Amino acid sequence: MNGTPINFIYNISKILGINIWVKHDDFYPFPGGGSKARKLNYILNEDIQKKFNAIVTAGGNQSNHLRSTALFAAKLGWKLICIIHDDEPEKYEGNLKIVKLTGAELRFVQKAGVKEAMDKAMADLSNEGYNPFYIWGGGHCVEGTLAYYDAAKELKAQLKEVKPDYLFVASGTGTTQAGIEIGIREFLPDCQVIGISVAREEKRGKEVILDSMKKLNNHLGNPIVMPADIQFDDRWTGGRYEATFPELLNTIKWVVQHEALVLDPTYTGKAFHALKIYAQNGKIAPGANVIFWHTGGLLNLMASKDL
Amino acid sequence: MNGTPINFIYNISKILGINIWVKHDDFYPFPGGGSKARKLNYILNEDIQKKFNAIVTAGGNQSNHLRSTALFAAKLGWKLICIIHDDEPEKYEGNLKIVKLTGAELRFVQKAGVKEAMDKAMADLSNEGYNPFYIWGGGHCVEGTLAYYDAAKELKAQLKEVKPDYLFVASGTGTTQAGIEIGIREFLPDCQVIGISVAREEKRGKEVILDSMKKLNNHLGNPIVMPADIQFDDRWTGGRYEATFPELLNTIKWVVQHEALVLDPTYTGKAFHALKIYAQNGKIAPGANVIFWHTGGLLNLMASKDL
Repeated sequence: MNGTPINFIYNISKILGINIWVKHDDFYPFPGGGSKARKLNYILNEDIQKKFNAIVTAGGNQSNHLRSTALFAAKLGWKLICIIHDDEPEKYEGNLKIVKLTGAELRFVQKAGVKEAMDKAMADLSNEGYNPFYIWGGGHCVEGTLAYYDAAKELKAQLKEVKPDYLFVASGTGTTQAGIEIGIREFLPDCQVIGISVAREEKRGKEVILDSMKKLNNHLGNPIVMPADIQFDDRWTGGRYEATFPELLNTIKWVVQHEALVLDPTYTGKAFHALKIYAQNGKIAPGANVIFWHTGGLLNLMASKDL
Repeated sequence: MNGTPINFIYNISKILGINIWVKHDDFYPFPGGGSKARKLNYILNEDIQKKFNAIVTAGGNQSNHLRSTALFAAKLGWKLICIIHDDEPEKYEGNLKIVKLTGAELRFVQKAGVKEAMDKAMADLSNEGYNPFYIWGGGHCVEGTLAYYDAAKELKAQLKEVKPDYLFVASGTGTTQAGIEIGIREFLPDCQVIGISVAREEKRGKEVILDSMKKLNNHLGNPIVMPADIQFDDRWTGGRYEATFPELLNTIKWVVQHEALVLDPTYTGKAFHALKIYAQNGKIAPGANVIFWHTGGLLNLMASKDL
């Protein structure tokens, strides 16, 4: 693969008076696509594959990370225990439907009990004779960050003569944004990265991203000077993870109706909604070149009750 | 794009004692992926785009063709009327959820009334001043067949030194199989194409495919001699379109658990189920090289009540 596709979107670019290219990680070639699949190739790299034969990880019912991990584990023939910090739903939909199909073991716990449940799962697997590998919830780790550093390099190679002024990306645990921040500073230094929070408040969100950036910088031995601040805009979370609000749902419909670009209410919808408002308010100058990094989410859309 | 990915699947190849490569049209870069998206680039080609500004087409609630057409129409800024030969569901799921999001007009009718409803929709659009384009249900037309003739050429280029003995593909209205039949006869003449019916009985299924092949042959001015017969195996339909049965559901789980290959109960699950039985019964010789053409279906899986 020469990278996920990148496409200019004509209709909405024209309406907003800016130039928008979509970097399609929703078309990453793994069932369900998305950023979590891209990261898992780095997290479960060859060295790890030699040493382990089981995984413990965590996420919510509609975790893209759990879905990608469950599929990856199935391919490797590894045992997987998923710690799910949600109530068990009556119906298994979207990402959870696929996790279930893979035969992974699901343990539903309260949010406060995740760490304890993961530790217990690690111990259980060890007692059964497995060598279990621990993946932090959401795939939040330096290898996941590295995947998006490399993805920024991929983007640079695809853009050719286009010089982007802004890059918008949905930002959750910050792994994706952190990798993009370091990569863009190295490969496209004139481009501003704007992370749109899907849940976290600005202060905590920035801390975590800056921490991930520092770790990646150390890992790479990179000469990039750490910034004093980054852009992490928390005004369109709707108050919490998976929250929606009417303007968000309208933007999602508007985008699919004008551009056949399918967003989701948990991640990419929030990021595009912010991009639209930035353009309308002139916070992005008319004629500017903007990258919208589509990180996936089709199965979140499928499982959403609000759309 | 250099074509959809093609991957060797190790685990199931080993279990079945044959060599299986999966041609991943499920990763075709259009929301939801799949064969219907690939066809639409041919059906709604540049000439058509110059002449028309609206579409009438038909399908069931979970039609991949309707979903792809609705997205394509949105991108073009065209008006679309979908004739849906199903009862309106309480909840819009899977493909229909996306069709709805695009803002297409939905008209639910009885199966016997499809043609009449399509004619009426064409007249309605003309009366409103549109130039409507008529697409047969499922995208069944020579341009759709042509897309899979070209896809067979793409496959040949990707296989390099691999010489396939068999090619399995889920076969519905036969457009896909017909294109593959002509293409494989030209580009990989030693490979047998085996269409696995998802609904139709053998006699009717073969007639329709042979008819589509003849039309494509004429369209191409192709020197390929029409075969007296083709392979279209109707033993695993479950009796009708969208029917499932326990062995089918078990195969779908078995495939995802061993190979992280996500199938669906309407199309690809039936085709893989047949492939498995062919291998187990020795109808495919041990060590044979087999292509499994994955035509998509993730949203059919999402909407299925049986999995």
